[in-house]
Amino acid sequence: MTYQLYYWDGIPGRGEFVRLALEDAGAPYVEVARGDEADGLGTAAMLQVLGSDHDAFPPFAPPFLRDGSRLISHVANILLYLGPRLKLAPAEEGLRHFAHGLQLTITDLLAEVHDTHHPISAALYYADQQDQAILRAAAFLKSRLPKYLGYFERVLQQNPRGSAHAVGRTTSYVDLSLFQLISGLLYAFPKAMRHFAADYPALAALHAQVPGRRRLARYLASERRLDFNQDGLFRHYPELDRAPARRRRPREPLQGS
Amino acid sequence: MTYQLYYWDGIPGRGEFVRLALEDAGAPYVEVARGDEADGLGTAAMLQVLGSDHDAFPPFAPPFLRDGSRLISHVANILLYLGPRLKLAPAEEGLRHFAHGLQLTITDLLAEVHDTHHPISAALYYADQQDQAILRAAAFLKSRLPKYLGYFERVLQQNPRGSAHAVGRTTSYVDLSLFQLISGLLYAFPKAMRHFAADYPALAALHAQVPGRRRLARYLASERRLDFNQDGLFRHYPELDRAPARRRRPREPLQGS
Repeated sequence: MTYQLYYWDGIPGRGEFVRLALEDAGAPYVEVARGDEADGLGTAAMLQVLGSDHDAFPPFAPPFLRDGSRLISHVANILLYLGPRLKLAPAEEGLRHFAHGLQLTITDLLAEVHDTHHPISAALYYADQQDQAILRAAAFLKSRLPKYLGYFERVLQQNPRGSAHAVGRTTSYVDLSLFQLISGLLYAFPKAMRHFAADYPALAALHAQVPGRRRLARYLASERRLDFNQDGLFRHYPELDRAPARRRRPREPLQGS
Repeated sequence: MTYQLYYWDGIPGRGEFVRLALEDAGAPYVEVARGDEADGLGTAAMLQVLGSDHDAFPPFAPPFLRDGSRLISHVANILLYLGPRLKLAPAEEGLRHFAHGLQLTITDLLAEVHDTHHPISAALYYADQQDQAILRAAAFLKSRLPKYLGYFERVLQQNPRGSAHAVGRTTSYVDLSLFQLISGLLYAFPKAMRHFAADYPALAALHAQVPGRRRLARYLASERRLDFNQDGLFRHYPELDRAPARRRRPREPLQGS
């Protein structure tokens, strides 16, 4: 079965978190919006699904995934669905919900990253909300970002199966998403992330390890992989990026790795 | 098995979306933060779980739910877990993911509602970000709120099993959450919601029907039910509430109800 992934063309954005799982597993999929209109694909085909006035399961926004007659929306929901199918999720129900909870925390962080450059409205240009963006980004980098990164570092370090993975002893979609999240943060906020590797050693180790995975390495070197850019979720505006006060070091040494 | 629900005392907030499902099903649960310190409960007991430096499954933020050794965080994830157990979710896997996607869209809307009064930082007082809140709330009421409400109205009207429910032909946790969402919007934005019933007839019918459910009616009349207030997610600041331009009427008549 070929999955159909619907997401905006031209930006990695939220779609990339789904792509990484599909690519890592070598699953067959079509990118609808990035396809050719002659094949019934393209952005218009995606907008048609979004605007349908009769579909039983309309999505609110991209990304969404079609698998046969099923249409599944929201990154975390798609990964919840794909996880067991792609062997990128733990088998036990409680662990699956833990992995999903981590993905939802990543979702929340992504929304906050977006709002650093669009604190008033996604319908306005950045330039028209830059003053507010400077305030919001400063608050984000001072208190929210260290809180999130400190949390994910704890999750890795407190994993009883070892700090190389967020959940259990094998790679899950959460690890892939953490890789993408950190890559985006390093792109958007290089100054604020300057001490990242020293402050969050387990996250840094994960970020270094994931792109070495066989299929993923091939994907990351391919033309399918989109670079971060100034239209996406992660944007580099130097005026929003500040070196933060240092975070205190983790209380516990690395476990199990 | 008695569930343990962890959420801040004193506000309905995000916890209320979980409470409605537990109460509607008559499921036994303990509210940890609202309990007595003499019983090992209270806010301190919740903060202890949040701050643990050794738990294998640390939550990022309330609400979270404990079920035996399982600890599940994020409203939508908790409802995904409880849904089948409380008979408030469809049985078919695709429908379950559709219900979960709707709940995640509600989650996104709640974050946007929160940011109407805290557009810069949750760590600052409202008074210190009131100017930006006025801008953000205006953008929210003008474009985002009608988009969300129009979407949920479509979901009801396009439900092949009838517009009385969001998913399938019986009440799910999504219906209960839509009731709570609309109640909160009517509290926070009475002017902006003035034409709600005329513009979104299926949503208005659902909002009128849900509180008549037997166990839920008893809960809503009880002391356990917390009123909306100015510390919560939904706040009524008259300066943020504006009557919007009228939305065009739905294209399709009500189906199946």
